[in-house]
Amino acid sequence: MIIQLKQPINTTIVDELKVKFARMRKQVFVNNNYLAVIDLDHFDFTDQESAAIDQVKMKTSTYVLGSRMFHPEDTRIKLPHSQIGGSDFTMMAGPCSVESEEHIRRMAKVARQGGATLLRGGAFKPRTTPYSFQGLGEEGLRFLREAADENGMDVITEVMDETHVPMVAEYTDVFQIGARNMQNFSLLKAVSKTRIPVALKRGLAATIDDLLNASEYIASGGNHNIMLIERGIRTFDNKYTRNTFDLGAVPVLQKLTHYPIIVDPSHAVGAWDLVAPMAYAGAASGASGMIVEIHDDPEHAFSDGPQALKPDNYLAMSAHVFALRQLMDSWEG
Amino acid sequence: MIIQLKQPINTTIVDELKVKFARMRKQVFVNNNYLAVIDLDHFDFTDQESAAIDQVKMKTSTYVLGSRMFHPEDTRIKLPHSQIGGSDFTMMAGPCSVESEEHIRRMAKVARQGGATLLRGGAFKPRTTPYSFQGLGEEGLRFLREAADENGMDVITEVMDETHVPMVAEYTDVFQIGARNMQNFSLLKAVSKTRIPVALKRGLAATIDDLLNASEYIASGGNHNIMLIERGIRTFDNKYTRNTFDLGAVPVLQKLTHYPIIVDPSHAVGAWDLVAPMAYAGAASGASGMIVEIHDDPEHAFSDGPQALKPDNYLAMSAHVFALRQLMDSWEG
Amino acid sequence: MIIQLKQPINTTIVDELKVKFARMRKQVFVNNNYLAVIDLDHFDFTDQESAAIDQVKMKTSTYVLGSRMFHPEDTRIKLPHSQIGGSDFTMMAGPCSVESEEHIRRMAKVARQGGATLLRGGAFKPRTTPYSFQGLGEEGLRFLREAADENGMDVITEVMDETHVPMVAEYTDVFQIGARNMQNFSLLKAVSKTRIPVALKRGLAATIDDLLNASEYIASGGNHNIMLIERGIRTFDNKYTRNTFDLGAVPVLQKLTHYPIIVDPSHAVGAWDLVAPMAYAGAASGASGMIVEIHDDPEHAFSDGPQALKPDNYLAMSAHVFALRQLMDSWEG
Amino acid sequence: MIIQLKQPINTTIVDELKVKFARMRKQVFVNNNYLAVIDLDHFDFTDQESAAIDQVKMKTSTYVLGSRMFHPEDTRIKLPHSQIGGSDFTMMAGPCSVESEEHIRRMAKVARQGGATLLRGGAFKPRTTPYSFQGLGEEGLRFLREAADENGMDVITEVMDETHVPMVAEYTDVFQIGARNMQNFSLLKAVSKTRIPVALKRGLAATIDDLLNASEYIASGGNHNIMLIERGIRTFDNKYTRNTFDLGAVPVLQKLTHYPIIVDPSHAVGAWDLVAPMAYAGAASGASGMIVEIHDDPEHAFSDGPQALKPDNYLAMSAHVFALRQLMDSWEG
Repeated sequence: MIIQLKQPINTTIVDELKVKFARMRKQVFVNNNYLAVIDLDHFDFTDQESAAIDQVKMKTSTYVLGSRMFHPEDTRIKLPHSQIGGSDFTMMAGPCSVESEEHIRRMAKVARQGGATLLRGGAFKPRTTPYSFQGLGEEGLRFLREAADENGMDVITEVMDETHVPMVAEYTDVFQIGARNMQNFSLLKAVSKTRIPVALKRGLAATIDDLLNASEYIASGGNHNIMLIERGIRTFDNKYTRNTFDLGAVPVLQKLTHYPIIVDPSHAVGAWDLVAPMAYAGAASGASGMIVEIHDDPEHAFSDGPQALKPDNYLAMSAHVFALRQLMDSWEG
Repeated sequence: MIIQLKQPINTTIVDELKVKFARMRKQVFVNNNYLAVIDLDHFDFTDQESAAIDQVKMKTSTYVLGSRMFHPEDTRIKLPHSQIGGSDFTMMAGPCSVESEEHIRRMAKVARQGGATLLRGGAFKPRTTPYSFQGLGEEGLRFLREAADENGMDVITEVMDETHVPMVAEYTDVFQIGARNMQNFSLLKAVSKTRIPVALKRGLAATIDDLLNASEYIASGGNHNIMLIERGIRTFDNKYTRNTFDLGAVPVLQKLTHYPIIVDPSHAVGAWDLVAPMAYAGAASGASGMIVEIHDDPEHAFSDGPQALKPDNYLAMSAHVFALRQLMDSWEG
Repeated sequence: MIIQLKQPINTTIVDELKVKFARMRKQVFVNNNYLAVIDLDHFDFTDQESAAIDQVKMKTSTYVLGSRMFHPEDTRIKLPHSQIGGSDFTMMAGPCSVESEEHIRRMAKVARQGGATLLRGGAFKPRTTPYSFQGLGEEGLRFLREAADENGMDVITEVMDETHVPMVAEYTDVFQIGARNMQNFSLLKAVSKTRIPVALKRGLAATIDDLLNASEYIASGGNHNIMLIERGIRTFDNKYTRNTFDLGAVPVLQKLTHYPIIVDPSHAVGAWDLVAPMAYAGAASGASGMIVEIHDDPEHAFSDGPQALKPDNYLAMSAHVFALRQLMDSWEG
Repeated sequence: MIIQLKQPINTTIVDELKVKFARMRKQVFVNNNYLAVIDLDHFDFTDQESAAIDQVKMKTSTYVLGSRMFHPEDTRIKLPHSQIGGSDFTMMAGPCSVESEEHIRRMAKVARQGGATLLRGGAFKPRTTPYSFQGLGEEGLRFLREAADENGMDVITEVMDETHVPMVAEYTDVFQIGARNMQNFSLLKAVSKTRIPVALKRGLAATIDDLLNASEYIASGGNHNIMLIERGIRTFDNKYTRNTFDLGAVPVLQKLTHYPIIVDPSHAVGAWDLVAPMAYAGAASGASGMIVEIHDDPEHAFSDGPQALKPDNYLAMSAHVFALRQLMDSWEG
């Protein structure tokens, strides 16, 4: 049940309602306009209560805090060098893995040059087999942080392990939760207890509802700085593309939720020469930002080389993407 | 085996080779630059023959005529009012079904106003259940033809039945083969014997290779005027979109084949308010054209009302799409 | 709307109702117990009419004739040498393609020896590419018919083309409609006009509902001798099996429809050494029969060799399958 | 590279090789017959070394320890009351969640009566939404352990969180890793450091290779007591079954790996009336065991009620399953 409150809010009534629902052992969430009560189908409001209420919506999604019904306006996430959500378009770029201090520095410069304000790079890598490169660990995070700082950028990096959350928090501006961990509920609960923004990647076989329900683990734990990343889903056809880029998810999610939606064309297609057209398509779909992988020597990349854009291609692509969004911004007026 | 011939072509040698391969009971296809022999893995060329040959490619795809290896340059299909393929972007629009003489006329005007040069409309409808509206039949084709002619447009319409091919041919400029008939090989063979362009829709579970192999039935029968339509594939997630729009297929197909690639955002998403963002994404992906469904009274449409754009939305969308492509054209220079 | 009639049936009332519904331009179907009216949501029955009616079911599936609601008892299909549906378990076996007169004769003997009462074999083959073996055509049908007759068996063979229906009808006891043609509605309508039993294969991406709706094209055209074949669906995992054998579809379909459900482990897995375990699983799932591919020289089979069982393996497998079903029959008592 | 050693093994040579490979910074695994070296494509063996070697297999899967190539014979897992793998068929049953001390006791009695030697029950539940029942926690584990002990059964229960591993280890005989955590590599590494058997469930979109690679995280960490559970995959059709039961995975996995394969018909179909036929199919496919959910009051179950078998149905089903396997055992002779 989501209760839309009359403005100005009658805080006495709201407090009384909260006590009543708590006695019924119901979870309650409140914001400036709404009061959500989990798993409550019916309630007899007093006349006084009814007078403080605009309307009551009975039919809600299983995710409440992430829904437009509870929070109609867009979430905007502010970082030292970036703003995500709303009218801006945010570029995030960097190599798949942090490979060395020098390499991530070089890549950061390129990323920034292409308009990226967040630097990506993995220090803990969730690899399909235990015998693949697993990342440089904390040292990699240090390199990543320094490279970002040198270039006036924010950091986004994956956290794979709930016990690492405090340590990774010292280096990053955004926690990335990988597709394979989208329903690692212990990890979601761990990041929910921080106030660091979380970029939650859609799982390979996650429905839109699964993704939103997973994000609710983060929000219900108290962290509302969430963005969602579409990075391709697994389908019957993966001969030429690693995954199927589900761009229809972008406008669907924008209807359902207020969180910023980011697209990841690199993982979606898995082949560098398909990244630019999919980056254009992703930008045109209306996403709030993009995360792409770049590398100056893809053949020798420690991971995911085939999908990395070389610097020149990245710079051309990002210039086109920003031009395309500039054009699209003119349509709104 | 694909044999690249030296220029100028030694026609005596080519003719001799054709005879030799025919004696081996191999199928042979020739164009201005290449000679393809089906199912031949090895051949001892004479010195004279070798002298006439640039190179021999042994590893070919199962589709040959549709491949860039046999036909590197883009196929361009010329119709009285449209050109499809190459540098142009072609809009095709109209209602799902031809509903009446008046209605299709009204819709044709709107379609043309939005820049469409082909009018779509179904007179024979492949409906999931036998109890749904099955189309107006030949009368519908007549209405469609007249509406197109009145507005200086070409006609694209579905043919479902090989016995209908000659009759439909009297009314249409382009045969559409629906997703459910993509591997109806008898129908493919029937249209292959005409010279009328064929728009082949990708099946719901068809891989890229399946689609290209199906198109080869048309080409090997002698009809090379082929375009391919991506219209969404079936995946695990269909709660909010009818299908999953596989835009990655656009650049993949453009690498593999010379046929024009068209996108169909209407069927891909199945919900009108998602069509515009997916139309932008489809245009940005680099497709050669787009086919969309429009209706002035979607609630009472005979079929697929929920995915039809109302005239105003269509006009805004198509203006944006053309603007977006104009911007993108400037990138090539 | 499905109307359950009181017994004994008041034929006067039924006839009057039929006239009324016809005047409303509604399609009507009647059997011994039920009267189905397509697309009718509400009707004011007179008292007399109500007195002749047991109950009215408003919420029906889009397929009516195939539903248990309209036809609760199992459909049993009787052929000269076989009975399909009900308590029997029917084995159908043979090579993928009819390859020669001698070969199909040899295979028929083996098939019969393993308890098969239907001989399968393709004379018209729906091949993914136009350059693959397309079948022996009508000559193949003659060989197939003779081989079946010699061994006291019935014939099941694929018809791909509506124009072939009368010709194929001269040779076969059962029309098989292939997975790729499951929604070739013209073909479905063509076989619906015969009284020859139809075995409809589930399409690669067809839902349970799609399959039942497709079968309704056959039934509503007047042919009620229908069986449905589960032959594997297309999913994300096809490295080790060609398709994913969806055995859950067997009990689901048995709840929804009265038609016999047949399983095809050969196409489902596509690898001969997986066929036996899947045949046991298919039999254990409760299917009414099984169709399997056999070949005495799989390496040189004209098509689908890798999935063909050699005679010895087939004989062992079928003996096990019949033993397993005998055990299961004892559970019903 | 997998090196098959001559018997009797020349331990001096083996030790020397291990030193050489270690100097090359290669990971090495040894068992009684084989020596596996990770990521080594070529090696020049001395004559002495070659004399101690039977053969060298260069082309190995990315998972090595789990492969039949490195470990041809079946893994058998021995627990106080059960043996899993090899010729036995093991039944595991119990409620989805541990709901109370009394309830799990009642269910344990039923499970044991039906031949189950492992008691299942969740105390930590990975629920799609944060607002669903999350399990009784450690108290639930205590109830589960006591109920199992009272009935001479072993315990299998899910661990969701690496920090819980030591605590759960005090109560369980088998760790279950849920489908959503199949690629939670931190959790896999945590259980790999124990010697408690692990039942790894296949993820919703995990390929066969993904599953085996995930199991390699457990094995390469030192825990070889692994079983794999097929529990249904996510496909386009989920209207009537929650997932698609991929029984073809059973014989495929049995060819590739030596670990026992267990089937979970309850989660695969998600509807109690489909569980028995799928249990029969699963047993007939050759799986080494089965895990099913039971409940005496499914309508009021704390989780997954719709798929729970009532005691009577469970007892009938399990009797049939054991009879079916007894019949199948007679085939091997």
